[in-house]
Amino acid sequence: MSLLALLLAGAAEEPTQKPESPGEPLPGLELFRWQWHEVEAPYLVALWILVASLAKIVFHLSRKVTSLVPESCLLILLGLVLGGIVLAVAKKAEYQLEPGTFFLFLLPPIVLDSGYFMPSRLFFDNLGAILTYAVVGTLWNAFTTGAALWGLQQAGLVAPRVQAGLLDFLLFGSLISAVDPVAVLAVFEEVHVNETLFIIVFGESLLNDAVTVVLYKVCNSFVEMGSANVQATDYLKGVASLFVVSLGGAAVGLVFAFLLALTTRFTKRVRIIEPLLVFLLAYAAYLTAEMASLSAILAVTMCGLGCKKYVEANISHKSRTTVKYTMKTLASCAETVIFMLLGISAVDSSKWAWDSGLVLGTLFFILFFRALGIADTLCFPTLLPVPPLPAAHIPF
Amino acid sequence: MSLLALLLAGAAEEPTQKPESPGEPLPGLELFRWQWHEVEAPYLVALWILVASLAKIVFHLSRKVTSLVPESCLLILLGLVLGGIVLAVAKKAEYQLEPGTFFLFLLPPIVLDSGYFMPSRLFFDNLGAILTYAVVGTLWNAFTTGAALWGLQQAGLVAPRVQAGLLDFLLFGSLISAVDPVAVLAVFEEVHVNETLFIIVFGESLLNDAVTVVLYKVCNSFVEMGSANVQATDYLKGVASLFVVSLGGAAVGLVFAFLLALTTRFTKRVRIIEPLLVFLLAYAAYLTAEMASLSAILAVTMCGLGCKKYVEANISHKSRTTVKYTMKTLASCAETVIFMLLGISAVDSSKWAWDSGLVLGTLFFILFFRALGIADTLCFPTLLPVPPLPAAHIPF
Repeated sequence: MSLLALLLAGAAEEPTQKPESPGEPLPGLELFRWQWHEVEAPYLVALWILVASLAKIVFHLSRKVTSLVPESCLLILLGLVLGGIVLAVAKKAEYQLEPGTFFLFLLPPIVLDSGYFMPSRLFFDNLGAILTYAVVGTLWNAFTTGAALWGLQQAGLVAPRVQAGLLDFLLFGSLISAVDPVAVLAVFEEVHVNETLFIIVFGESLLNDAVTVVLYKVCNSFVEMGSANVQATDYLKGVASLFVVSLGGAAVGLVFAFLLALTTRFTKRVRIIEPLLVFLLAYAAYLTAEMASLSAILAVTMCGLGCKKYVEANISHKSRTTVKYTMKTLASCAETVIFMLLGISAVDSSKWAWDSGLVLGTLFFILFFRALGIADTLCFPTLLPVPPLPAAHIPF
Repeated sequence: MSLLALLLAGAAEEPTQKPESPGEPLPGLELFRWQWHEVEAPYLVALWILVASLAKIVFHLSRKVTSLVPESCLLILLGLVLGGIVLAVAKKAEYQLEPGTFFLFLLPPIVLDSGYFMPSRLFFDNLGAILTYAVVGTLWNAFTTGAALWGLQQAGLVAPRVQAGLLDFLLFGSLISAVDPVAVLAVFEEVHVNETLFIIVFGESLLNDAVTVVLYKVCNSFVEMGSANVQATDYLKGVASLFVVSLGGAAVGLVFAFLLALTTRFTKRVRIIEPLLVFLLAYAAYLTAEMASLSAILAVTMCGLGCKKYVEANISHKSRTTVKYTMKTLASCAETVIFMLLGISAVDSSKWAWDSGLVLGTLFFILFFRALGIADTLCFPTLLPVPPLPAAHIPF
């Protein structure tokens, strides 16, 4: 008796039971039947990943092109072209990068890959500097950029169409000023920067997640409440929530790292599911943190960092290779798809409006205040909780 | 500027824009927020796979248990228990094995794994026997089982509640008499049968897919049309559709195998996406065949069989290892989940009704006519298009 049979029967239940209207001519035996809508969802996903992968192959056919333009830019450009075609054919913008897709499916493999293969010695040696940049640096960037843009508006350099108060600009500042791990990985790995610089900027981009999330939540709540209704306890709550989100996320990650280390001790007779377990439990860590509004990026980073030593010791050599290359492949695939979809999403002009003052002002202030923040920590090395970086390590 | 930021802004668009009703008390800053429904879908999938994987680990802790009871049976039993718990808690049957999930997500990795790692020499050496069993054998089993059950009903041995004519019984016969690859793999790999027996039964289970699909489609159409309306051309169409479905499916598979062999020639500089390409193109073959109502099982089997030599020669050693173990892991995971979900689905008693005559009759006739069919080919070896099997290879 066949599984297939039982399921085929299940699948066919509906058409068999449909009432036959006696007036209509009875359909003969069909030789062909086109059932696009049944396979639509997985087909489209597979197709877009395929397009992105093929584009990657084409870009790398010529070494000249990729040495001149970073791959991520090429992918965004491809996305713009494809988005334009979709827009022309379908008359509306489709296949946009949805926040749900990004946070639930595309971001986790990238962060897991980077957490799992994080050079942990280098990371912990520079933890002080990383935390300084991630917490103090991010707060500094967000507030100064937001405040400066508000100043720009007060000075009348932003189109009067932009109706926003100081709180709105701070909200925008908290969004725009954080360093992002996807872009850092894409660019830094391609240009092969100094490893200390890499670990500091990359570590910051991972650890600032909690700060960004909290800052965004707090500013957003304040905007919703209106500045008049914000009370002193709300500021305290904001500070408390920074600790809850970051330490909570890290704790979730460590709990799952422990579970993973424990489970892989018992897989000697079922080696085949070892790679699966690693991905499943790390993903569960991410989703659990996301569900509780904790920092999911911190959770999966800590899970990867925490479990690696034990997992690698427990699982077989073949499982180790599979975990390593599958993780790299998934992360690379997610990154490729993100940049392509970013390009496609940028085509939808109904969402965007150009404002020279705001755009150029933002660009300038981000760079300016970031440089100022870094110069500060270098001029006052006593502010750093660890021995300061040798200046030679920071080339800008 | 951060990707994260742009997307966070997108995600928050809705709550920010919601109109505030002035009467309601304004919410203060929230420290915690539980967002289960946002992560529900991927969380549940991850959780069920995790449960199945952990169960597998537990079963294999004791070698005694798995040597007595096949793993697939243990998983079905586990499913029954879990299904019972779900039924008791939720008061309704949930997490059933849906045909869509089975055909789009669980079956493809299993068939790809078996097609890709098919011992091709052994397969082609026994192709005649395999085809005889897959086409003639399956037709024989379906018609005899269906007709015999109809005879049983005419003899009054089936509860009168079962209202069905000869065509309905033939439809049932076409469903129930085909050998199924998932079960063959699960059982035969565990008991380590003779390799010729394995390739014949397993090959049959893959190649009979086209026959089963066509037989089911034809019988189903005839039942819908009513036996009085079936015309001579419909029988011809049925025969033609057997060729369309099988050869069409195989052709789709070979086209994708060619594409895969071609694409992997150009991946020397982007080794990281090689494993992804293999899975994507094989899956695209499956979905394309499924979409055109061709035999998707044949398509992915032929794709795996056809591309392997070229792909293995083109991709790097590390990619080969990754492809191999990822394929095995995915297939094992899919198989595990299928058997567990089968158990869970069996709990829903509203779908089932016991009829001793029908159940025992079906069991008996399937075994009886299958044995008769095999005895036939052994007694009349000239019927086989290839030299007959040495009798020693067939232990029953």
